[in-house]
Amino acid sequence: MGNVFLVGAGPGDPELLTVKALRILQRADVVLYDSLVSAEVLTLIPPGAHLVDVGKRAGQKLLTQDEINALLVDYAAKSETVVRLKGGDPMLFGRASEEIESLRLAKVPFEIIPGISAAFGAAAVAGFSLTDRRAASQVLFTTFSRGDSAKSLGWREVTSDTTLAIYMPGTDYAEVATRLLDVGLSAEIPCAVISHASLPGQGIRWSNIGALFEEQRLPAPAILIVGRVATQDIRAIGEKVSAVSLSKSESADRVPQSWIKN
Amino acid sequence: MGNVFLVGAGPGDPELLTVKALRILQRADVVLYDSLVSAEVLTLIPPGAHLVDVGKRAGQKLLTQDEINALLVDYAAKSETVVRLKGGDPMLFGRASEEIESLRLAKVPFEIIPGISAAFGAAAVAGFSLTDRRAASQVLFTTFSRGDSAKSLGWREVTSDTTLAIYMPGTDYAEVATRLLDVGLSAEIPCAVISHASLPGQGIRWSNIGALFEEQRLPAPAILIVGRVATQDIRAIGEKVSAVSLSKSESADRVPQSWIKN
Repeated sequence: MGNVFLVGAGPGDPELLTVKALRILQRADVVLYDSLVSAEVLTLIPPGAHLVDVGKRAGQKLLTQDEINALLVDYAAKSETVVRLKGGDPMLFGRASEEIESLRLAKVPFEIIPGISAAFGAAAVAGFSLTDRRAASQVLFTTFSRGDSAKSLGWREVTSDTTLAIYMPGTDYAEVATRLLDVGLSAEIPCAVISHASLPGQGIRWSNIGALFEEQRLPAPAILIVGRVATQDIRAIGEKVSAVSLSKSESADRVPQSWIKN
Repeated sequence: MGNVFLVGAGPGDPELLTVKALRILQRADVVLYDSLVSAEVLTLIPPGAHLVDVGKRAGQKLLTQDEINALLVDYAAKSETVVRLKGGDPMLFGRASEEIESLRLAKVPFEIIPGISAAFGAAAVAGFSLTDRRAASQVLFTTFSRGDSAKSLGWREVTSDTTLAIYMPGTDYAEVATRLLDVGLSAEIPCAVISHASLPGQGIRWSNIGALFEEQRLPAPAILIVGRVATQDIRAIGEKVSAVSLSKSESADRVPQSWIKN
């Protein structure tokens, strides 16, 4: 029986694979990959390897999760090195736990090799830190699903010093902006859409929640980062904070009050 | 003038550096590194490079942040490749934004090279996904600071389907457990302390919030992951969820009610 490696492909640039991921990928016999894995990373797979596209395209599901789980077990029975290649990191929004469960049940040896998750790839190219002791002390990694009112419970309670990293924001930014306003965030809070981070076609759109309604769409995969850190002018963070902290110190709420709606 | 690279050193294993980070590190003239960078990663730095330890050790600050900012600008004036090497990813809990601000003000060209953040390194070795569509739809990356009541505001509002990745939990687990109970989480919620993830001395302590009071300490750097996903028995997640979802579907709150205190 072979080994299965759940490997993070990172944000897109092949140089952002880990050294270990590259090493394993280059000796793979079979690679099952997602649609979020960049074409540039796929070129690193040796020509003799069997490639299986298990991703979704334009909403059309190629394989169910159960089918992918079964494929992993089947390939492990007949191949030495089976790689399950996932965009970003396999352990965040990647359905890895269902695959791990199947591998454990079938007693297939497996290993997880982490990858650079989209938020980190995006922050690196946009040039702002996800946290800043003057502006954001924590980050919520979340997703946007249309009509997913359950998820908004989590957002509603986010404090003003939390950065939101919204994976898969979709193509209807107005819908996301509406949700952000609905949960009590102010229209003036900065945000940035980062598309194809680390790849030649990368794009960044600097905005704020209010202006997000009118923003031109950037191509998927994209991530939306919302919060006081999501600005090109880092100095503005310091100035805004110090203006407020004169009257209000040691509070989680060190933002201009106009940024908070309720 | 040279270039400054803010480079993520990842969780510790040198093979978990990105290919790009390794390439830049191997041509570095100067490397300013934190105490969170593993000794194993430091061995990759070429012998001719000038090494500067800017980290904190046992609470003793070696250099202030302002001094580090100034050093980066100074070294860039006289060296071609200056690397600011940070444990994990530079853009999360790394004070990168202050360094970026200084580099921008001094017009020093810089680039950010992401790294595997501790939560991903930990999830990979512990073998559980940070999210699971049956148990956790989002992850809050946060820190624990003694007496930091401001931060607890953010935790208080976390829904039962949010995983907490608590960086730098410190050595007094009872204090952290008290805070977690105080914000309304139930003693039965699973958690795991993962120490030195990806390094030879790595350790994992499986626990829950109630038992965390009595857990033996693991050596720093460590991360505490709290939530329904933080278990060795992934099947338990599925079973618990399906038991509840019979009576209560499409809710964010798909957990046994005993897990929620208030």
